[in-house]
Amino acid sequence: MTTIPTSAPSATKTLGGTQLARDIRAGVTSAAAELTLLGLPPRLAVVAATDDESSAWYVSSIAKAAAKSGIVCDVVDLGAGATPQGIRAELEKLSADPAVHGIILQTPLPAGANFEDLAASIAPDKDVDGANPVSLGRLAAGLPAYAPATAAAVLALLDHHEVPLAGRTGVVVGRSNVVGKPAAQLLLQRDATVTICHRHTRNLDHYTRTADVLVVAVGRPGLITAQHVAEHTVVIDVGTNPTDDGGLVGDVDETSVSGRVAGLTPVPGGVGPVTTALLLHHTIQSASRSQHS
Amino acid sequence: MTTIPTSAPSATKTLGGTQLARDIRAGVTSAAAELTLLGLPPRLAVVAATDDESSAWYVSSIAKAAAKSGIVCDVVDLGAGATPQGIRAELEKLSADPAVHGIILQTPLPAGANFEDLAASIAPDKDVDGANPVSLGRLAAGLPAYAPATAAAVLALLDHHEVPLAGRTGVVVGRSNVVGKPAAQLLLQRDATVTICHRHTRNLDHYTRTADVLVVAVGRPGLITAQHVAEHTVVIDVGTNPTDDGGLVGDVDETSVSGRVAGLTPVPGGVGPVTTALLLHHTIQSASRSQHS
Repeated sequence: MTTIPTSAPSATKTLGGTQLARDIRAGVTSAAAELTLLGLPPRLAVVAATDDESSAWYVSSIAKAAAKSGIVCDVVDLGAGATPQGIRAELEKLSADPAVHGIILQTPLPAGANFEDLAASIAPDKDVDGANPVSLGRLAAGLPAYAPATAAAVLALLDHHEVPLAGRTGVVVGRSNVVGKPAAQLLLQRDATVTICHRHTRNLDHYTRTADVLVVAVGRPGLITAQHVAEHTVVIDVGTNPTDDGGLVGDVDETSVSGRVAGLTPVPGGVGPVTTALLLHHTIQSASRSQHS
Repeated sequence: MTTIPTSAPSATKTLGGTQLARDIRAGVTSAAAELTLLGLPPRLAVVAATDDESSAWYVSSIAKAAAKSGIVCDVVDLGAGATPQGIRAELEKLSADPAVHGIILQTPLPAGANFEDLAASIAPDKDVDGANPVSLGRLAAGLPAYAPATAAAVLALLDHHEVPLAGRTGVVVGRSNVVGKPAAQLLLQRDATVTICHRHTRNLDHYTRTADVLVVAVGRPGLITAQHVAEHTVVIDVGTNPTDDGGLVGDVDETSVSGRVAGLTPVPGGVGPVTTALLLHHTIQSASRSQHS
């Protein structure tokens, strides 16, 4: 006798990012080679002012990825004792340097330094990680601007996996200036109906269960479980939380939601590699534009 | 025998704006007098490039309100034949003029002129109607900036009538750069969970019925009816649609929702007068800052 389960878990599609990242980086590598041949080697500068270890790890991974793609990457380490004035002066110097095409301001910053305030000193046409509030405003207003690479990666993954957005319900958990807010703007631009949730949201599951697309960018492992999702939900997990054994987990409890959602990005191997690839892609875009100006 | 109605309509509070507008304008008038005495008469410039009648009516109502409060208002009418270059040059000239403290770019603009693109030429510290995308970005990033006066008026009305926002559900219908998007940002800043709906939203009533605060800024009379609201909903009607008999109606069908919501702003006499008062208030803020700089 065969028992038919009454609520068989549906198949959850894994929405990986490594193939997409590879494709983007292939384009970056060939464009970088071309620009270098023309005597215009694309150049990315990362400004850091911290001795935070995971930040150092992230910066070195960007530098390695850049080098591998033929982009020169200068890591400007101002040290954890840097002053806001010193950081601003460095950002202004790099903004004025015609050999530099992309500028990233790494977090965390020393106490007393305000990220948004300092990022306003990054020239908008070199703001490849969309950190300058001008970029956020231009993005919201529908003018050309670089979106923060992580937010852009969310959209790129959704497009790569052909997830429809127009007229769908998008729910973003987290309202940071670097992920939550710009991701919400990008979903809105693509005609999704968008809800933004955060730490003051009551009954989070009430909102998240309505999502066709659920973007989670909070930084808390296990935040999203089976109770927060529906079968039609595609979940984009932006969280990257280090584990004790040196690994990474997202904000979504994969075991809990697996089989109960339509799709889920893995961590690692989802948003992360696409983010790095798009940072390099933005740098190439900036370098190509400077060539024509 | 007394019949107890099973679903007696609850009382709907009228959330008027005229008293609040009067209070703001009283402060503006006394500050304007003080600044004028100091030899720094506050000055607002309105740049128009249209022969649209309702625009002309709006500009003249701002000019009258400014004059009544002791703010000099220059209406710079470039005519419907103005070019984007001509409009930009005027905005740049006014931005550079130390005697001018506030600059408004009136809509509609001539064909071929992009509002956001031109508004980017308004100096952010004189952008009293929050039209420059920089202002929208700074607002979203939590940095000081002028919000569009209409969006600021929505929040001012909610505060004036002591409507709680933190942890509540805010639903904004309309995603314009001048009202919907900045109103959503301001509600988010105040810790509401915020949903943005627009013309691609399916089952609009499904979202709007969840709202503790419903902000409607579309420009379509009768868009919101009893089916879109709940008893706990406070409705802010930003619509100002001219009627055949020379009057104004909002986007909310007042007859339909009356008695079925907790509160409703009237049109006229709600958001409108507060918007004008806040434009003047922003101009005074700008003039006071220029005095200290």
